[in-house]
Amino acid sequence: MPIKVPADEMAEFLDEVFPQVKGMFGIDRLDEDLLVMRLHASEQHLRPGGTVSGPAMFSLADVAAYVATMARIGKEALAVTTNCSIDFMRKPAAGVDVVAHAKLLKLGKTLSVTEVLLYSEGSPDPVARANLTYSIPPAR
Amino acid sequence: MPIKVPADEMAEFLDEVFPQVKGMFGIDRLDEDLLVMRLHASEQHLRPGGTVSGPAMFSLADVAAYVATMARIGKEALAVTTNCSIDFMRKPAAGVDVVAHAKLLKLGKTLSVTEVLLYSEGSPDPVARANLTYSIPPAR
Amino acid sequence: MPIKVPADEMAEFLDEVFPQVKGMFGIDRLDEDLLVMRLHASEQHLRPGGTVSGPAMFSLADVAAYVATMARIGKEALAVTTNCSIDFMRKPAAGVDVVAHAKLLKLGKTLSVTEVLLYSEGSPDPVARANLTYSIPPAR
Amino acid sequence: MPIKVPADEMAEFLDEVFPQVKGMFGIDRLDEDLLVMRLHASEQHLRPGGTVSGPAMFSLADVAAYVATMARIGKEALAVTTNCSIDFMRKPAAGVDVVAHAKLLKLGKTLSVTEVLLYSEGSPDPVARANLTYSIPPAR
Repeated sequence: MPIKVPADEMAEFLDEVFPQVKGMFGIDRLDEDLLVMRLHASEQHLRPGGTVSGPAMFSLADVAAYVATMARIGKEALAVTTNCSIDFMRKPAAGVDVVAHAKLLKLGKTLSVTEVLLYSEGSPDPVARANLTYSIPPAR
Repeated sequence: MPIKVPADEMAEFLDEVFPQVKGMFGIDRLDEDLLVMRLHASEQHLRPGGTVSGPAMFSLADVAAYVATMARIGKEALAVTTNCSIDFMRKPAAGVDVVAHAKLLKLGKTLSVTEVLLYSEGSPDPVARANLTYSIPPAR
Repeated sequence: MPIKVPADEMAEFLDEVFPQVKGMFGIDRLDEDLLVMRLHASEQHLRPGGTVSGPAMFSLADVAAYVATMARIGKEALAVTTNCSIDFMRKPAAGVDVVAHAKLLKLGKTLSVTEVLLYSEGSPDPVARANLTYSIPPAR
Repeated sequence: MPIKVPADEMAEFLDEVFPQVKGMFGIDRLDEDLLVMRLHASEQHLRPGGTVSGPAMFSLADVAAYVATMARIGKEALAVTTNCSIDFMRKPAAGVDVVAHAKLLKLGKTLSVTEVLLYSEGSPDPVARANLTYSIPPAR
């Protein structure tokens, strides 16, 4: 499934459609094999102790699945989350970014399925894992 | 499973342990049968069009499961989310609060399971559903 | 969402499309509010100790979501499971049927979402809960 | 996390604790990096058309997560499924085994988390994915 929208164009597109989260996420890598995104953790995403909150990790997994899908179907299309299952496995390290490694497992006509592993930058064991389904409405 | 911590005390406790989200959530009802909480939607939780974002709905479901659990085990205990599966079923209505109806299905020695339905206030059909597992570490 | 296919007709239809599981499930109630189905536990669905196995409970939840969907869209349509999240919360009682209470939460053009609680017959606390998404392919 | 119970010993142990499914599963590979198991599809696991049923795929994912966990904690321990989320993404090919690739993502004191990809043997795209949590009760 070739990439139609490269990383820099995708980053601009994110800022456009989700202005509320502008600057929150970065795209480190986007190719057919893997998407790597990061959460630039700011005060509002932290819990006491300086670790990234569960909802902020959910946000990162969600936006990664969105980017993995939209990069392949194109910016003129639409995609909305229909399901996410997320496991929180370890406490993130304080003071470092959380980084998502996302793989698109399926791109059908109406659904995409993406699998995401979340890491505290520099640590080998994932802090969380998630799978997300996006619904792709028919073109208008 | 009787309620050890009433709604107003629980609300104060939330502000204490999660100062970053102070004022974000309200507790409408907390008894043995049902917990009702609401998300006071502010600009940062909205998507273009004025509807509440997926991550904000996740936050509400997550905090509701936390409150349902902590209200029964007591404030001196600890509980952390280990799993959440969430289905987004309808677009929330613009300009109204999202309200969560949460039921605790299980309270074991090490795990609790809560089921949550999310509604746009005033609409009968749920906008989302979620189930959450919290892990309860042994008392220190 | 009115019921197009009543319980007895639905039961016959199940035997037709899934001959391998003929006699495994029964429909106790099927109306707009609730679907109640049971697993007639036989030797092959039991674990040592005489309790119903996890996969057998999954089967019951899956068929209940199928019946809840097909009863509304009609037998000429098609529906396939795309996602299930299931929590096993208590050990089922030995020697009694497992009974599913299923509610359809959403019926869209391409997806249905159903929530299921599973009980050991005669016990008030659920042994498991599940949510299932079915994909409804366009009519051919 | 080193493997305490090698593949052949694990296979014998499965037959012992789950006599009802004797011969249903095979272990192709079991080491620190990956567990590969297969479902020897027989008539009762097939749907019309000769493809493996959803519940049979759930069984395979479930047993793979069990083996991945027990191989590391040892046969004298106990583990029970508490949660599974499974996505069915493609129709399995008819007439070939379904093969599971399972990775243990976390082994804690009370919980393990395993991720499983299911393939029709010989096809590169997964037919399903699942994540499973097992609860590990304290030693008696």
